[in-house]
Amino acid sequence: MKIKLASSYGFCYGVKRAIKIAEEHPGSATYGPLIHNKDEIDRLKSSFDIGLVESFGEAEQVDSIVIRTHGIPKNELKMLKAEGKEIINATCPYVTTPQQIVERMSREGYSIVVFGDRNHPEIKGVVSYAEDPRDAFVVLEESELESLPLKSKVAVVAQTTRKPADFLEIVNALVLRAKEVRVFNTICNATFENQDAAAELAKEADMMIVIGGKHSSNTKQLHSICKNYCEESYLIENENELDPAWFEGKELCGISAGASTPDWVVQNVIARIREIEEVTRALRSE
Amino acid sequence: MKIKLASSYGFCYGVKRAIKIAEEHPGSATYGPLIHNKDEIDRLKSSFDIGLVESFGEAEQVDSIVIRTHGIPKNELKMLKAEGKEIINATCPYVTTPQQIVERMSREGYSIVVFGDRNHPEIKGVVSYAEDPRDAFVVLEESELESLPLKSKVAVVAQTTRKPADFLEIVNALVLRAKEVRVFNTICNATFENQDAAAELAKEADMMIVIGGKHSSNTKQLHSICKNYCEESYLIENENELDPAWFEGKELCGISAGASTPDWVVQNVIARIREIEEVTRALRSE
Repeated sequence: MKIKLASSYGFCYGVKRAIKIAEEHPGSATYGPLIHNKDEIDRLKSSFDIGLVESFGEAEQVDSIVIRTHGIPKNELKMLKAEGKEIINATCPYVTTPQQIVERMSREGYSIVVFGDRNHPEIKGVVSYAEDPRDAFVVLEESELESLPLKSKVAVVAQTTRKPADFLEIVNALVLRAKEVRVFNTICNATFENQDAAAELAKEADMMIVIGGKHSSNTKQLHSICKNYCEESYLIENENELDPAWFEGKELCGISAGASTPDWVVQNVIARIREIEEVTRALRSE
Repeated sequence: MKIKLASSYGFCYGVKRAIKIAEEHPGSATYGPLIHNKDEIDRLKSSFDIGLVESFGEAEQVDSIVIRTHGIPKNELKMLKAEGKEIINATCPYVTTPQQIVERMSREGYSIVVFGDRNHPEIKGVVSYAEDPRDAFVVLEESELESLPLKSKVAVVAQTTRKPADFLEIVNALVLRAKEVRVFNTICNATFENQDAAAELAKEADMMIVIGGKHSSNTKQLHSICKNYCEESYLIENENELDPAWFEGKELCGISAGASTPDWVVQNVIARIREIEEVTRALRSE
């Protein structure tokens, strides 16, 4: 049986980069979890002595702080620097961009609209870069725009993980209202790349294995996309959930993984599938 | 019978302004007709000696040139100035704005997309303000964008008379493609103001009179909107077409006029309706 990985799966560019940066700084602590995967956090702790602090107060107690992909609010960064901390900045470059845009547009006198979830760490960071907090507004729905005291010049950015179609709704409402709308499409297509690659692979595979958290919404969506094209699509968290019966008579097994699934988990799954194949072959030849 | 004018009708702000400017410069000539209405052109000629030149070659033969609302290409303006002509600039301020935007955005290194008709005088003028003609593109359809060599930073303006919904289609395609899209909503709502006002009036009137050219598309659209709300809606070019039978038993006669209909034509129609009423009353009392 052939095993084929989706052309894009698992960690996005920014998370891979952040983990690499953390590994290069043993003994530091990440401010917030680097990834929503306990196994990977444990691995970083045991192999690289990377700690985890969950609040600003805790962050002030450590010497070397890794800023995760989401970034942090500007004033927190400033305070940590003022306190002489070593800052290891692993903010995703796709998140640094909207931070810089908000800072620049705010300086140039634009009202700022940030399309995203005001409670998400990425957005808390991005919006904090406005020179005057009264110039920046976070919205999730077009209807929220109505009551905003926007100037005639508006700049708009999006949370990196939003859907482009939803962003366009906000943009359209602004274009009909303001004289100038400066639209920065800061949406990252990593999520969609994994989804598109999984769909392509599911079309040709006899079966699909999707590896990721059973409660992870992005993993569940990957699984649902795979099922749409390939009836025999299974969602597993790790290699222990593999069932030898799944592979009987199959020619091509496709594999994808959620955005929080480390590659070593994927490799463990592949290794176990090969073991299952060998055991099955041995049993058959007995 | 009460006669009520729509709250907005006839000439838009820019055309009214241009005619006033022309009247203040007797003996000058307009470069292209100031308005698509022969009676008004004739009135300007007989009352203010305002001539009409149709080509750049002809424009070079006169001393004082009125630039009409649409504006003219930048190089023509420059040449006329260099030749020492008196330039009476009646370009609509709503058209000057996109001209200036194109000039500024082109200087700042943006690709320019102009949403409009490349053969329309307004657009020929607007697009001519790009510092480098290779930076500016005129499109009418979203599909035309695909093959354009756009940079990552794009500025977009619209012909003043376009529909906002069509403009948004272009904007959306650009947002999905470029890193930054600077959207300048340069659409003027004068056309829609006349339409909305006509619809409101037609709802309450017993009958509607729409005054304008029978071949004018904006007048025909006004008439069609009125008919939708008021069955007895008539399209006439002037007072000679009024039929006394229309007014029998009516309580409220609404009036609107196309964008090329001078107000004196509207006033003539109102005067004639009053005459018809008096004649009818006199006949009744005999």
